[in-house]
Amino acid sequence: MKLILDLDTGIDDAMALAYAVGSPDLELIGVTGTYGNVYTKVGVQNVLNLLEMMGKPEIPVFLGEKKALTQDVFVRHEVSARIHGENGVGQVELPVAAEHASQMDAVDFIIESVKKYGKELVIVATGPQTNLAAALNKAPEIKEIMGKIVIMGGALTVPGNVSPYAEANISKDPLAAKILFESGLDVTMVGLDVTQRSQLTLEDLQAWKNCGTLAGEKYADMVAYYISQHEHSGGTACYLHDPSAAVCAVHPEWFTMLPMHMTVVTEGEAAGRTIGDPMKLREANPNVKVCIGVDSPKLEAHLKEILMRAFLGN
Amino acid sequence: MKLILDLDTGIDDAMALAYAVGSPDLELIGVTGTYGNVYTKVGVQNVLNLLEMMGKPEIPVFLGEKKALTQDVFVRHEVSARIHGENGVGQVELPVAAEHASQMDAVDFIIESVKKYGKELVIVATGPQTNLAAALNKAPEIKEIMGKIVIMGGALTVPGNVSPYAEANISKDPLAAKILFESGLDVTMVGLDVTQRSQLTLEDLQAWKNCGTLAGEKYADMVAYYISQHEHSGGTACYLHDPSAAVCAVHPEWFTMLPMHMTVVTEGEAAGRTIGDPMKLREANPNVKVCIGVDSPKLEAHLKEILMRAFLGN
Repeated sequence: MKLILDLDTGIDDAMALAYAVGSPDLELIGVTGTYGNVYTKVGVQNVLNLLEMMGKPEIPVFLGEKKALTQDVFVRHEVSARIHGENGVGQVELPVAAEHASQMDAVDFIIESVKKYGKELVIVATGPQTNLAAALNKAPEIKEIMGKIVIMGGALTVPGNVSPYAEANISKDPLAAKILFESGLDVTMVGLDVTQRSQLTLEDLQAWKNCGTLAGEKYADMVAYYISQHEHSGGTACYLHDPSAAVCAVHPEWFTMLPMHMTVVTEGEAAGRTIGDPMKLREANPNVKVCIGVDSPKLEAHLKEILMRAFLGN
Repeated sequence: MKLILDLDTGIDDAMALAYAVGSPDLELIGVTGTYGNVYTKVGVQNVLNLLEMMGKPEIPVFLGEKKALTQDVFVRHEVSARIHGENGVGQVELPVAAEHASQMDAVDFIIESVKKYGKELVIVATGPQTNLAAALNKAPEIKEIMGKIVIMGGALTVPGNVSPYAEANISKDPLAAKILFESGLDVTMVGLDVTQRSQLTLEDLQAWKNCGTLAGEKYADMVAYYISQHEHSGGTACYLHDPSAAVCAVHPEWFTMLPMHMTVVTEGEAAGRTIGDPMKLREANPNVKVCIGVDSPKLEAHLKEILMRAFLGN
């Protein structure tokens, strides 16, 4: 299937990218950049560097929105610099790509691609949903033909990770998430409910380190940094946030999904909370498929297999 | 199956009571009273009156806890008086029962019954879980032999009804809920996630009114009052909170359940929030079965059938 990745790269975004590169089931037609773990420009440069390192310099990369729909400016959170490193890739130095970002704007690329490929195209978004909401605002007619959208974001059955209520991606632009959820599109929410059920351990990285390619080595270093920032495991394992969304696009059958009429709290102490709309519990056609369970052993084994393919240039 | 109902009666508690009386699958061995919708004493008197009206004066009724585990006093909320009427049964006048509450304390009755019947006994609790927590605190050894517990309480995928985070029963004694959830017992949570999916309408009451018994007539009047307080429907239908828990004890197969390691927030603005423990997402043996879906048409039709049996004295 044809895929656009919308990333704020970010170490786990980098893993989602490698998954898309390595998967025989995915044809990555472009990467759109957004803000979040890093500033948009930094994330796009990281994607360019990673793609060239994995032997895919021809995949186009697009600069997208730099801030939330209703904000004047985005200021990167200190915790993002801690978790992903100042440069977004765990302080690992990557060879600088020869390629540059495309001239076209990310939002326009999304609109154009939807018009070109319709429901053949899947979009996996692992940052705030601002680019998607901007595309829907700019060209509402694409709703009629748009295919599946899978987001990493939200938390329904567990607390958030930036507040007791909100997950990081949604919290950065709750209105964008609300626009997306209430758009009537086929949206799958891969939130903390499932991304915290799957892990990668320090031991898993050894094979990457030994695989004999620069990509394997650099990814091992990046993810080792990321793991070191995961206090829950004592720095021995990391959760699989963004890669879970990418896997879900290919293998939805490994996830337990709860179809819900979801909404997003946009103001107050609970801003960014993703929650069911109690007034719509008896209504048909729920707007979001919320992932609430996952076959983690399958997902973890599969992810490692596909990432290795990407690192080996298969 | 043998059943204890733990009630704070309350109009929807009264419906759960009628369901237990009318169900050919349930043998109601006793009703324990708690505080919540009303003060404990008022709720117990309501149960005595209702049982006698339904021709079951022999079922024993027990006075239980009067307040939360860690509080000195319970003050009934104004909203409870509005929703259930000052007298707890919608301002409907019921004939006063000849029977009185048993001398034995509710907590002791629960402990004794568990020791007598073990896993044959199901407990359905539709108020704060204080009596259950008190029983577990007083006789922790019953955990080993205790059967299924079904509670009406909590909200996982939708907002609460007394705050954006908390459902009314849990909010009145969050610690009791936490003790119950973390006890290792077989607990099923029938919360707002499902109780707000099922309804009873004003039209449904006409058959009760016409069935020719005092019970049918009085229940129609009580539930008509309850419906009139449901703003969501414009006063034409009510949610089925407590009766859903009673039905779930008999027909769990009509519910979609999510096994989760659940916990309860006991302090702060979110006190009473029922939420998954993010640190236990990878652990086996989830402690609570959270109902997240229900076959509402089946439940509604079944409930009406069984309530009619109760009103007709079958």
